[in-house]
Amino acid sequence: MARITSSRATGNGEESLLHTIQHVQLPMLNRKVAVRVGIGDDAAVWQPRSGYQTILTCDWFLEDTHFLVDRHPPESVGWKCLARALSDIAAMGADPRCFLLSLALPKEREGEWLRRFLKGLRSASRSLKCPIAGGDTTRRGQILISLTVIGECRRGRAVRRSAARPGDVLFITGRLGEAEYGLRLLKSGAKPSDPRVQKHLYPKPRLAVGQWLAERKMATAMMDLSDGLSTDLPRLCAASSVGALIEQHRIPCVRISRTHGAPDRKRFDPIELAANGGDDYELLFAVSKSRAERLPRVIAGVTVTRIGEITANKKIVIVNSNGKAKILVNRGWDPFR
Amino acid sequence: MARITSSRATGNGEESLLHTIQHVQLPMLNRKVAVRVGIGDDAAVWQPRSGYQTILTCDWFLEDTHFLVDRHPPESVGWKCLARALSDIAAMGADPRCFLLSLALPKEREGEWLRRFLKGLRSASRSLKCPIAGGDTTRRGQILISLTVIGECRRGRAVRRSAARPGDVLFITGRLGEAEYGLRLLKSGAKPSDPRVQKHLYPKPRLAVGQWLAERKMATAMMDLSDGLSTDLPRLCAASSVGALIEQHRIPCVRISRTHGAPDRKRFDPIELAANGGDDYELLFAVSKSRAERLPRVIAGVTVTRIGEITANKKIVIVNSNGKAKILVNRGWDPFR
Repeated sequence: MARITSSRATGNGEESLLHTIQHVQLPMLNRKVAVRVGIGDDAAVWQPRSGYQTILTCDWFLEDTHFLVDRHPPESVGWKCLARALSDIAAMGADPRCFLLSLALPKEREGEWLRRFLKGLRSASRSLKCPIAGGDTTRRGQILISLTVIGECRRGRAVRRSAARPGDVLFITGRLGEAEYGLRLLKSGAKPSDPRVQKHLYPKPRLAVGQWLAERKMATAMMDLSDGLSTDLPRLCAASSVGALIEQHRIPCVRISRTHGAPDRKRFDPIELAANGGDDYELLFAVSKSRAERLPRVIAGVTVTRIGEITANKKIVIVNSNGKAKILVNRGWDPFR
Repeated sequence: MARITSSRATGNGEESLLHTIQHVQLPMLNRKVAVRVGIGDDAAVWQPRSGYQTILTCDWFLEDTHFLVDRHPPESVGWKCLARALSDIAAMGADPRCFLLSLALPKEREGEWLRRFLKGLRSASRSLKCPIAGGDTTRRGQILISLTVIGECRRGRAVRRSAARPGDVLFITGRLGEAEYGLRLLKSGAKPSDPRVQKHLYPKPRLAVGQWLAERKMATAMMDLSDGLSTDLPRLCAASSVGALIEQHRIPCVRISRTHGAPDRKRFDPIELAANGGDDYELLFAVSKSRAERLPRVIAGVTVTRIGEITANKKIVIVNSNGKAKILVNRGWDPFR
């Protein structure tokens, strides 16, 4: 991060790009006194709160792997790179505090594209209350982004994936498959302004729900659904050395729009989208049976839905509407497949 | 970072790669109790020390931009990606605490290359006392690395770039141009085992010197020399709104080996290498005149050398051995040039 400086005095390329970033982002820094030295030094200095633990997460967001430059508006790339990293903070029940941006850009993206990218990033930064603290930039043939987010939670309150117990009730926030539906529509020509594409382009990490659960020690285990239920649920179960039984009819699935009539219904299976679609950034969490009964159906304005329970055997089973049980096959997103 | 999990249970590609990383790196985690939740959850949980501030820095290390896969041994890539990020921690006078690794790899690098990369990374992690806390992995056509390091220093002791004052004496650690000399030899066919190439392949961040200076409030401004003196000194001066006068004969330059005789001497100008060569990761710092007289010549085993002073006008001037003054032209490394 030596490479972020506060001056254009030397007049070289990197300084000039960084000046742009700093100029656009600086207002954010002033709103959080916790960041004592931000862009313009070898490293950022940040003041942690007494009685809190620091939560650290990093996330790749790469052209062609995570977004398509000809399909995804730069504003969405800016918003989403921060929002999806913040989803990991939400999944721990923590409060975001600041972030570092590592950005590599082709020369032709340093003008209009960068301006619109920073607009989206600033919008997420303000809306999700997470100011920039520093970063590193370089030139590259494709757009590469790596985001690091620093969060905080009260000592001992971070919610891990590993403490779910048999009998715990499984919940999710929101509706699953919406982001995948949006992505498929976008790829087949829908406009970025199409409301069905919004959740894919501008996901909202469930920070308030995660914090609500962590503060009350309500969840025994929690994670965010970034790669799809069929990929992420096995991860939570493996970390907790348990299994799960999901009731298919309980899963709140994406609603396929009627305006597109029969063809859309044939093209899109809501259950398949909900089970295997990535990028929803909803929370998946387990609550002990006794506490589950008292759990509100809406937390911080977000609907939470019971979808099944944790089991002692290590299988991940889904029961369909006819009562037939099947192993849930892992078909979510994996960059290595 | 949701993408680092502790299990191979789901049997997919990402889990398998992460298992390799975790398996190799896990011993490091156990040595630092500060990291409460490491690889295997949505985010890492880290316990900051009371009375300390957190230092945050991130650094790109990309194939073809920062290293060449056919020239740089994987062990060097592993060592250097962490060592150079830690140099920013050294430049603040801070103590490293943990790091996050974002790694993107082509399929053909997941075997032998990854094993050797992790060997180098683990060696740096142990030697420089900075354990891994988490990370994110994905697949990509080229090797992409982004390192985030978390450090700490006592409240108010972090050394910035911006408080150098006219009359302060400028010092550097070690010898300049050695890494650039090594790089040029490597590119022209020298073996990685050649001792002259070692500083380029396995740089040692000046952590102990930085901490020594910060603890004693000895330096008014400090930064690390990652892009070359002629590029980095203007950055320190700009941040402090000052200039500098460097005496060329005082700069401890790389020694060009005699074994290569006259041709080597013609090919390599020690002053040019010292002024414009990057990757040395030595420290550049300013000390008030009164304190400069008491500064030891060797700090934590590293020679420190007075090379000039801070001036009130904002020019960066170099005086050669004949007493002739010239503006120091910025010719260091810039990925945007």
